[in-house]
Amino acid sequence: MKVVITEDYNEMSTVATQYLLGAMHGQYRKNISITAGSTPKKVYEILVPLVKNKEYFEQVHYYNFDEIEFKGSGNEYGVTMTNLNKMFFDPAEIKKERIHVLDWTNYETQDERIKADGGLDFVLLGVGADGHFCGNLPNTTKFGDLTSRVDEDATPNMVDVLLNEVGGVEEMRPSFYVTMGPKSIMQIKQLVMIANGKEKAEIVKRLVEGTVSEEYPATLLTTHPNMTLIVDKEAASLL
Amino acid sequence: MKVVITEDYNEMSTVATQYLLGAMHGQYRKNISITAGSTPKKVYEILVPLVKNKEYFEQVHYYNFDEIEFKGSGNEYGVTMTNLNKMFFDPAEIKKERIHVLDWTNYETQDERIKADGGLDFVLLGVGADGHFCGNLPNTTKFGDLTSRVDEDATPNMVDVLLNEVGGVEEMRPSFYVTMGPKSIMQIKQLVMIANGKEKAEIVKRLVEGTVSEEYPATLLTTHPNMTLIVDKEAASLL
Amino acid sequence: MKVVITEDYNEMSTVATQYLLGAMHGQYRKNISITAGSTPKKVYEILVPLVKNKEYFEQVHYYNFDEIEFKGSGNEYGVTMTNLNKMFFDPAEIKKERIHVLDWTNYETQDERIKADGGLDFVLLGVGADGHFCGNLPNTTKFGDLTSRVDEDATPNMVDVLLNEVGGVEEMRPSFYVTMGPKSIMQIKQLVMIANGKEKAEIVKRLVEGTVSEEYPATLLTTHPNMTLIVDKEAASLL
Amino acid sequence: MKVVITEDYNEMSTVATQYLLGAMHGQYRKNISITAGSTPKKVYEILVPLVKNKEYFEQVHYYNFDEIEFKGSGNEYGVTMTNLNKMFFDPAEIKKERIHVLDWTNYETQDERIKADGGLDFVLLGVGADGHFCGNLPNTTKFGDLTSRVDEDATPNMVDVLLNEVGGVEEMRPSFYVTMGPKSIMQIKQLVMIANGKEKAEIVKRLVEGTVSEEYPATLLTTHPNMTLIVDKEAASLL
Repeated sequence: MKVVITEDYNEMSTVATQYLLGAMHGQYRKNISITAGSTPKKVYEILVPLVKNKEYFEQVHYYNFDEIEFKGSGNEYGVTMTNLNKMFFDPAEIKKERIHVLDWTNYETQDERIKADGGLDFVLLGVGADGHFCGNLPNTTKFGDLTSRVDEDATPNMVDVLLNEVGGVEEMRPSFYVTMGPKSIMQIKQLVMIANGKEKAEIVKRLVEGTVSEEYPATLLTTHPNMTLIVDKEAASLL
Repeated sequence: MKVVITEDYNEMSTVATQYLLGAMHGQYRKNISITAGSTPKKVYEILVPLVKNKEYFEQVHYYNFDEIEFKGSGNEYGVTMTNLNKMFFDPAEIKKERIHVLDWTNYETQDERIKADGGLDFVLLGVGADGHFCGNLPNTTKFGDLTSRVDEDATPNMVDVLLNEVGGVEEMRPSFYVTMGPKSIMQIKQLVMIANGKEKAEIVKRLVEGTVSEEYPATLLTTHPNMTLIVDKEAASLL
Repeated sequence: MKVVITEDYNEMSTVATQYLLGAMHGQYRKNISITAGSTPKKVYEILVPLVKNKEYFEQVHYYNFDEIEFKGSGNEYGVTMTNLNKMFFDPAEIKKERIHVLDWTNYETQDERIKADGGLDFVLLGVGADGHFCGNLPNTTKFGDLTSRVDEDATPNMVDVLLNEVGGVEEMRPSFYVTMGPKSIMQIKQLVMIANGKEKAEIVKRLVEGTVSEEYPATLLTTHPNMTLIVDKEAASLL
Repeated sequence: MKVVITEDYNEMSTVATQYLLGAMHGQYRKNISITAGSTPKKVYEILVPLVKNKEYFEQVHYYNFDEIEFKGSGNEYGVTMTNLNKMFFDPAEIKKERIHVLDWTNYETQDERIKADGGLDFVLLGVGADGHFCGNLPNTTKFGDLTSRVDEDATPNMVDVLLNEVGGVEEMRPSFYVTMGPKSIMQIKQLVMIANGKEKAEIVKRLVEGTVSEEYPATLLTTHPNMTLIVDKEAASLL
């Protein structure tokens, strides 16, 4: 694992975007998975004007890596895709045929479909203070899991997690979510993880110096042969 | 992980040699790590005449991944290198300057030296019925370990393991051995593991279908993005 | 360009097969183009039993790179594919859906189709004493040509060439043949060229030491960043 | 060859910088060659603050690809390095041990030294209206040339070219310059060429649509398997 320490959130985002753009350019199809959430917000702010309506990025295919249904809402998209649409796919005007949606209806074939598409070339990931990445929260998935569903009884507070994700609206709370598992993510050719802020300092210390353990799912990724962790000074403050 | 199921030990060895030769050819330096032991015996029988005195393999550099001293013997080499010398390096007349020896004197800088050499491109590994690979026996190293020493008190039977490795000669029994750790091996760009015979059927089943757990160290390698497991029919009999 | 000098035709064929097998193994689709003719005969003799009915080569897709119609014969295949079928595809029992035929009906879209398939990963080529490769004979195609048709009036003796290719049967002589052009072949990620015998010594000398010139079309390939020329001692005798 | 058409000089420079940064990031040594001259001015303006004092770019090694001596001046550096120092190496504070200078004293071993360093991973090139790249002016080098010296009698106006390069000071005019040849550049794993302005429209048209010919040296590069041509609208106006 390479650790890139940057000054602040802006530089973290700039460097992450450099990695991302490097992985997107090329003559042949590039399969990229990108993360929703608050950490990559600036990455997409930088990225949108660079990608919007640019024919030279037409070889890029996008994949989301987890999803939570807004149950009974009739929404085509769940929490993750709604967020990605808003932050990136809509403003960058990415064509639908190049967005490969993972959701609650097709998760069982996600790993097969990706394999048939030639594998993923690159993923941009965040990490939680609890060591989760994608939907791989502690005590939900195992290191050996491929794309999985995580049910409401997976952990004591999972019902609350699900409720919170759909904005606290009980009627829209689904009974499970889906996520590419640790093994699915490890199959990707290049991993880039971003983390900023003091609240990430402990997990970053653990990723850089600590053991690999299912208690902190992201520790597995530190063994990947092409993994880069990009952090700001605050997230690096315990190193 | 790709699983290659072959008819028998000969075909397993033939296919492993195809992977190995594919990784050795090229215009620029290739860094290869190879395994000692009984499983690869046939691989080296096939390999020696193909490599001996062939200038077109002069870009290949070799690395052993574990070592046990013959203590007090005055031997330059330990158990692993002695075995590799006998099976491959001597009969293939590989020049010493292209053999990068890991031993009890330099293990602490092994990972740094490999990084400075550009990383390892390929490793050929065996697997034990107990799930060990290299010197990563159950309950010795952890998934997050780089090259490590394993002491005689690491497990209840480690003294016996060490004694057995040096041929049962108590005076030559060292108090520790050294091995590239799980994290060191995961950094290698391509992994190929070979297994044959009924006694490997259970561990092979576990590698292919089971969970990833430090109880069976080799299960970690199943998450590597470029890992191939080559087995014969007997080792595949429980799949 | 790397030059591999081998003892004889057998070793040249063995080493070429090592390169080929190295390019065929893998987890994801591999697109390989192979040559017909007499030079690779031994390569296919070695290859057929190693590939026949082996599931672990099911990711390999095959492409021929030139073709000459047996005109009016009603034959589905032309000269090249007939030869490849006989030497390799039939005895190795390669499934038709993994053989991507170039012929006189579809040559205009060959480069597009290959691009859509992700590009070719590897090509095995021969070379003529006159410096031709594929159907790129001197004074037929230009360095900048993609897949092209070469007409009977391209050179003074082209009618005879075409006649000879279809076995001297005037009724079957077509008015043109098709070939991937120099630029098409240069787009392939890895090139391996084989040459044996004294009659190849001059062109081999030219490839290794000489200038790059359309008079000897294969000289262009010596500029490719991943090109290997495998020759026997006789073909290397003027180096 | 992939052709990237951008709006203007700024976007051309932005996209070129994206390619460059993508090639510079990584865990292992990266060998990069970059161009002097006026076309890349904006690339270096963008690049300098992104690279200056950034430890995460310490794996990058830099190589110049041509040089002209300021004769008798006692200057350590020639025209190209002086220009690169001013535009990039000095303001970005690149350490000298990571700058591998080609000059009039060591050009004969340039290709060997690069090979020993593992080859070049990436080059950023400009192109002249006359089709030259690096110091490969029409009628100076041949497609098959490695790093070469070009003497004052190479072309009728070469004395003037040399004089102009050293600022018109006759006492400093050298009798030759050195350049990596077409074959040296083709060995690089990834090529990126930039061109802007109307005066480049004809050569760009020739690169995209024309033949490959030594009259226009850069046409050779259009056959490279990983070549990108980045142009602005004006340079693309004849496509």
